[in-house]
Amino acid sequence: MSNKYVSYEPTRSMIYVDCADEDSRIKLQYWLYRTHIPDSISQFGPYVTKYAFYNALPVPPDGERFGTIKMQLTEHNWMVNHLDPRTLNKILTEVMPPEVLVWQNNMPASALNGGNMDGDDFRKTTGGNVPFIFAHVPLWWEDDVKGKERTINDGPNYRWNFCISYPKSDLYPIENGDKWLFEEVFPVFEKMPECTRIVSSKVIKDINECPMDRMVEMWFDGPTNWHKCIEACASVKKPEWAQTDVFPYLKPYYNIIGAFVTDYPTSDNLTQYHGYITMR
Amino acid sequence: MSNKYVSYEPTRSMIYVDCADEDSRIKLQYWLYRTHIPDSISQFGPYVTKYAFYNALPVPPDGERFGTIKMQLTEHNWMVNHLDPRTLNKILTEVMPPEVLVWQNNMPASALNGGNMDGDDFRKTTGGNVPFIFAHVPLWWEDDVKGKERTINDGPNYRWNFCISYPKSDLYPIENGDKWLFEEVFPVFEKMPECTRIVSSKVIKDINECPMDRMVEMWFDGPTNWHKCIEACASVKKPEWAQTDVFPYLKPYYNIIGAFVTDYPTSDNLTQYHGYITMR
Amino acid sequence: MSNKYVSYEPTRSMIYVDCADEDSRIKLQYWLYRTHIPDSISQFGPYVTKYAFYNALPVPPDGERFGTIKMQLTEHNWMVNHLDPRTLNKILTEVMPPEVLVWQNNMPASALNGGNMDGDDFRKTTGGNVPFIFAHVPLWWEDDVKGKERTINDGPNYRWNFCISYPKSDLYPIENGDKWLFEEVFPVFEKMPECTRIVSSKVIKDINECPMDRMVEMWFDGPTNWHKCIEACASVKKPEWAQTDVFPYLKPYYNIIGAFVTDYPTSDNLTQYHGYITMR
Amino acid sequence: MSNKYVSYEPTRSMIYVDCADEDSRIKLQYWLYRTHIPDSISQFGPYVTKYAFYNALPVPPDGERFGTIKMQLTEHNWMVNHLDPRTLNKILTEVMPPEVLVWQNNMPASALNGGNMDGDDFRKTTGGNVPFIFAHVPLWWEDDVKGKERTINDGPNYRWNFCISYPKSDLYPIENGDKWLFEEVFPVFEKMPECTRIVSSKVIKDINECPMDRMVEMWFDGPTNWHKCIEACASVKKPEWAQTDVFPYLKPYYNIIGAFVTDYPTSDNLTQYHGYITMR
Amino acid sequence: MSNKYVSYEPTRSMIYVDCADEDSRIKLQYWLYRTHIPDSISQFGPYVTKYAFYNALPVPPDGERFGTIKMQLTEHNWMVNHLDPRTLNKILTEVMPPEVLVWQNNMPASALNGGNMDGDDFRKTTGGNVPFIFAHVPLWWEDDVKGKERTINDGPNYRWNFCISYPKSDLYPIENGDKWLFEEVFPVFEKMPECTRIVSSKVIKDINECPMDRMVEMWFDGPTNWHKCIEACASVKKPEWAQTDVFPYLKPYYNIIGAFVTDYPTSDNLTQYHGYITMR
Amino acid sequence: MSNKYVSYEPTRSMIYVDCADEDSRIKLQYWLYRTHIPDSISQFGPYVTKYAFYNALPVPPDGERFGTIKMQLTEHNWMVNHLDPRTLNKILTEVMPPEVLVWQNNMPASALNGGNMDGDDFRKTTGGNVPFIFAHVPLWWEDDVKGKERTINDGPNYRWNFCISYPKSDLYPIENGDKWLFEEVFPVFEKMPECTRIVSSKVIKDINECPMDRMVEMWFDGPTNWHKCIEACASVKKPEWAQTDVFPYLKPYYNIIGAFVTDYPTSDNLTQYHGYITMR
Repeated sequence: MSNKYVSYEPTRSMIYVDCADEDSRIKLQYWLYRTHIPDSISQFGPYVTKYAFYNALPVPPDGERFGTIKMQLTEHNWMVNHLDPRTLNKILTEVMPPEVLVWQNNMPASALNGGNMDGDDFRKTTGGNVPFIFAHVPLWWEDDVKGKERTINDGPNYRWNFCISYPKSDLYPIENGDKWLFEEVFPVFEKMPECTRIVSSKVIKDINECPMDRMVEMWFDGPTNWHKCIEACASVKKPEWAQTDVFPYLKPYYNIIGAFVTDYPTSDNLTQYHGYITMR
Repeated sequence: MSNKYVSYEPTRSMIYVDCADEDSRIKLQYWLYRTHIPDSISQFGPYVTKYAFYNALPVPPDGERFGTIKMQLTEHNWMVNHLDPRTLNKILTEVMPPEVLVWQNNMPASALNGGNMDGDDFRKTTGGNVPFIFAHVPLWWEDDVKGKERTINDGPNYRWNFCISYPKSDLYPIENGDKWLFEEVFPVFEKMPECTRIVSSKVIKDINECPMDRMVEMWFDGPTNWHKCIEACASVKKPEWAQTDVFPYLKPYYNIIGAFVTDYPTSDNLTQYHGYITMR
Repeated sequence: MSNKYVSYEPTRSMIYVDCADEDSRIKLQYWLYRTHIPDSISQFGPYVTKYAFYNALPVPPDGERFGTIKMQLTEHNWMVNHLDPRTLNKILTEVMPPEVLVWQNNMPASALNGGNMDGDDFRKTTGGNVPFIFAHVPLWWEDDVKGKERTINDGPNYRWNFCISYPKSDLYPIENGDKWLFEEVFPVFEKMPECTRIVSSKVIKDINECPMDRMVEMWFDGPTNWHKCIEACASVKKPEWAQTDVFPYLKPYYNIIGAFVTDYPTSDNLTQYHGYITMR
Repeated sequence: MSNKYVSYEPTRSMIYVDCADEDSRIKLQYWLYRTHIPDSISQFGPYVTKYAFYNALPVPPDGERFGTIKMQLTEHNWMVNHLDPRTLNKILTEVMPPEVLVWQNNMPASALNGGNMDGDDFRKTTGGNVPFIFAHVPLWWEDDVKGKERTINDGPNYRWNFCISYPKSDLYPIENGDKWLFEEVFPVFEKMPECTRIVSSKVIKDINECPMDRMVEMWFDGPTNWHKCIEACASVKKPEWAQTDVFPYLKPYYNIIGAFVTDYPTSDNLTQYHGYITMR
Repeated sequence: MSNKYVSYEPTRSMIYVDCADEDSRIKLQYWLYRTHIPDSISQFGPYVTKYAFYNALPVPPDGERFGTIKMQLTEHNWMVNHLDPRTLNKILTEVMPPEVLVWQNNMPASALNGGNMDGDDFRKTTGGNVPFIFAHVPLWWEDDVKGKERTINDGPNYRWNFCISYPKSDLYPIENGDKWLFEEVFPVFEKMPECTRIVSSKVIKDINECPMDRMVEMWFDGPTNWHKCIEACASVKKPEWAQTDVFPYLKPYYNIIGAFVTDYPTSDNLTQYHGYITMR
Repeated sequence: MSNKYVSYEPTRSMIYVDCADEDSRIKLQYWLYRTHIPDSISQFGPYVTKYAFYNALPVPPDGERFGTIKMQLTEHNWMVNHLDPRTLNKILTEVMPPEVLVWQNNMPASALNGGNMDGDDFRKTTGGNVPFIFAHVPLWWEDDVKGKERTINDGPNYRWNFCISYPKSDLYPIENGDKWLFEEVFPVFEKMPECTRIVSSKVIKDINECPMDRMVEMWFDGPTNWHKCIEACASVKKPEWAQTDVFPYLKPYYNIIGAFVTDYPTSDNLTQYHGYITMR
């Protein structure tokens, strides 16, 4: 804050967008593509270098246990800390009807009380349903655990991108959780040929006080092989801080949340958006 | 055919692309976006004015009974008859591995026997599973049955685009089917406020000997209201040529096939495709 | 109408959009760019090859006498007759609040009575103010009267694009008007070096029963030289059907309407529109 | 300067481009769009993230008193200090005929003496007419005074973007001016419902020794309401350093200069420019 | 010509652009990309659906004997006969300095006599050097002689696109030439595995009185294999109308002219041109 | 490295891509445009602001003596040090078949031993042929030696971009080389009107341990005038560290390597790439 200029602090962020039910899906899509994309680009275009939506693939069997969301993964690549106090005056507030939080399953419909919301408040709302998770990581993955040699010629990837928040306390510091993840969990996946890629980064928590601790991405060639791998995880040691009785021992949507997506963005908004041109 | 030049014959076509299972989905998407879009534009770019993909929304309850497909609707707007014999020499054959037909659920995996396929043959293949339906209609809808005044401001539309092939015989000419559709079926939907729009066109069958007779599009505000409408259709008179005991009385995927999509294309390929740029 | 397919009938059209007052200008622009461009492209994208807006330059001294409009010239290049009865079913009606007609000065504010309008009705409305003029001409100019050799290297052009409707009656057929224009008016401009270009076409009146008879475009290097030319026109013979006492002897906005624009479109919508991205 | 690399110092700048007379307007536009946009992008494309032109709306009644310019506002968003000595070697000098300064009303035609100009010299020229004002501010507004909750759904905005240079002396430091602006002027606008938005930033003067001290943006719904607000300013206390007898008590074009523009850029050059494609 | 509207007559054309010497190459490129692309799109954008430049690959050994040009192949896909008399009035004449004809090797420098040229005259000029060949063929190849099954996955193609004008007389009608080509020449290439593809079409001569009779495209995997094939052609029967003693028995640049290009256009102008943005 | 975030360190880099023979050219182009452009943008899109290919012009007479390459110059403009250890984890390894190194003439075909390569290893390979030179310089030229006033209106530029590695030893430090270049070599070119522009920068060697010391760009109006200039260099003093007997006294491709290119990029990949759309 003592510098004259906002610093160059490149990060990448993921928002895990859920969908309350199938009637909400098209309402959410209508708002996202018709209203929100242009609203967003108008505001952050000059300091964002990637802004993409990845439609969530259908939730695979047992996916809910891992906090799998149903709408989309929203990616931003930021050149600055977009929550630096010096960046918060926006000439136009985003159009953020609170219904969006209901459609996204962040808030029950019963909590609606009208009015537009401020975008930054919006993203902090936790209304009792699936929390709104907005996690920042460095622009490049920190830990490359498996599959470094994979190229796009090796075939399509069924990507499982998820975040974990370890149950923390004085007894169980965050390092504890990471130790369990790297020494108990990853080795199971490393042994399975069905898992083709593992990378991970620590979440940069101070930008927005994100509750999540770590982002992980694992790849498979489809849901069948993903399921084989999580079956193999039955052997993973239950940690002392386990919240549930079965792997991943974490409270879904609160302590683990993720999405299954493909390699190709549904909409790479900065290069592909040309207005809300509809089907005739 | 006697003219020196290929004629201007503007049509619009829809391909109803199914997906054999969830492991096939990302394989199909990889081929469609990485290989097929550039292949297609290379070939028909100069005589196609719209080429768009619309991801199929999740199949709603009872959707299978109506032949609902799970992958996407592929739309082309053609300026000429692209199957006119004078247009069939293509400098490059499309990359069409027969596996695509398996992923699309048009052919059982057991039928695979290697080799690349010619695109036009590909599209005629009927391997025993969901037929490959490629239906042409005029560029503009012929029949505007309900909801002419609707604008995009009225909210998002849960679009049900489907094709019907009436069981035909000497006893039951095609006009019979249309009479039933317009006089028995549409009136039920016209009465239901849950249905906001109905349009329809005759399929132009002679272009590719398409088995379907008619394309219909109906709009709702979501799957719940769609279901209310088809429940109301229990009252629709069973036609003499009924193939099944319940509405729509047609053999799913063979005599009725359709998709649920939104207003916004997932990829409007001629304007939005910029190469297969993947998630980092 | 007897053909199976809609015919290839390439035309170019101009709409002369006025602006009631300066408070209306930004309202009109907001609707045009935020709502109407995507609405329009959604509908006619597959059969329009150019869709451009040219901001009207400030009305020069004496410009009102020539029916000079203040908002913009809207150009379309159509591949078909977009008013052929077979093309009139549109899946979405354009968002056309009648206030637009007030902002465009086609209708007094007092005439407003709510509701959305059908786009085609909209364009036929004549509410007592400046008529809504929508004139079609062939895709290429028919008459090249002066300046054929001019290139873009010769400098910017102050383009005066206007339409004339000759007062017609049994006594004064349309040929009469053209004779006066080509033999009395054009020669004055041909002699003036200040006028660098003259082209003209007959309006194709049967598409939309357009009241205008002829479209003309004349170029100058700015308003000063345009004014010198119209001063020289004081010598033009007053025709028998004169509606006013001074050149051009036509009722402004009704029998002559036009705009001053530059060479470069303000928005070449099919290639330049990327959504309503606003100033931060 | 002691660092090895040029620093990340994101700023936003505005150039207030006037127009000497209506004959100059199209000459200026021809140079800006045909020559200057590609020249500029060739040079600064890799370190500019927004480069947009906003056509000035017509000068409202009494606008000249506030130094209102008539051509356009030119916006750049810079990632670095583009006047850092290490950035000044440019492979191609911009095409900058001194006539441009005459068309822009920065210099009388009588001062022309041929030759091309260096772009950076060009921008420092003060030839006795309207000064060339090029003001840098932080990428985000510093002071959000009124209307924080406004969204683009609230309607179009008649934006008044202007800069002030307070008359400075030993007696009247810059803080004096700001005190007057925030305590005497803004409160009048804050009370008027006709003014919907007020934001402001200090000009970063050291980049190019800009004479202006502060940039302000105020929004209205049109010129009528803007005028009501400046009428209300008759009550604003005349500051000790007043240069004129009426509000804003500043020498127009020298100590106050501004433009009225809309929300939508006329040309968002980095995304919308596709070459100088002209009207046919 | 008796129709009211210009007809839909889709064709594809190739211009074989040579280069007088290496000093001319960059002059020609500067004019083509800086001046000619925008000039052309301004004019024919609404009725051309493909406009691409393919840089000529280096002339292989013995390439001159086959009339190989050194600059580029220019492709247009037209929707109408662009030389129909009704299409000839162009609002702006293309910037066509006669030097271009010298750089293109169509005219000796000594023939220069100043002034701009009309584009259509330009294209008819035959100044004694390499003729300006502008050949139209149907939008789809008429004869598919070899390699129909080839896909883009089979590797890059060294494309030899050329035109032939058979020496014609009462004794030797055009059918004679085609008989020789299809029965004597093609079979040699069909037997050689080094040739992977052969297609051909008759030139539509009446559009612009093109001297060429037939366009052929043959593919190889590089110049070495091309040369092997033309060596094998030593066995081709010398036709009665032979102009030279060695295969192809035709006067290079006059009776045979061609280019070697790759699959990928150097510039697909309608989608890839964004102005003349230069290297910094 | 002690900072939390990767720093903003803007650089520009050039890769000098040679071509082993004409059969390799199209193989290299196929890989570059079909596979490598999308691979690259997927990876570095968010931190690269320019990524362009410039086709090498034909090697002029005596060009080999100066280490002239035959394929292309590849330019990147980086916002960060892309070899900072924190940036090296890439989700997908680039598709880098070692054959590419053979086609690029960096490695003899005999050295091929299969497998894909890691992109960063790839770029360090020196297989005995032309070294792979990848040189970084500041985003702006450091030394402006001649021709500062040149604009794009002055005509096309035959650009000679090259790098020098001075033979270094205890006796001959790098300053020695620069002294010779600035005091012996540049003055010859400065005196020749045939040379229109000279700029230069020190190579930032520590990013990738680049062997080159300095990048220079000189402009001419074509190869004839370039040759006149190098003829004049016969008078340049032979330095003590000369590796050869004639100017430039450096071992070609090892101690001097360069390319002749034009002003206009063959492909400005971030703005112009739309997928591998081929010639029909």
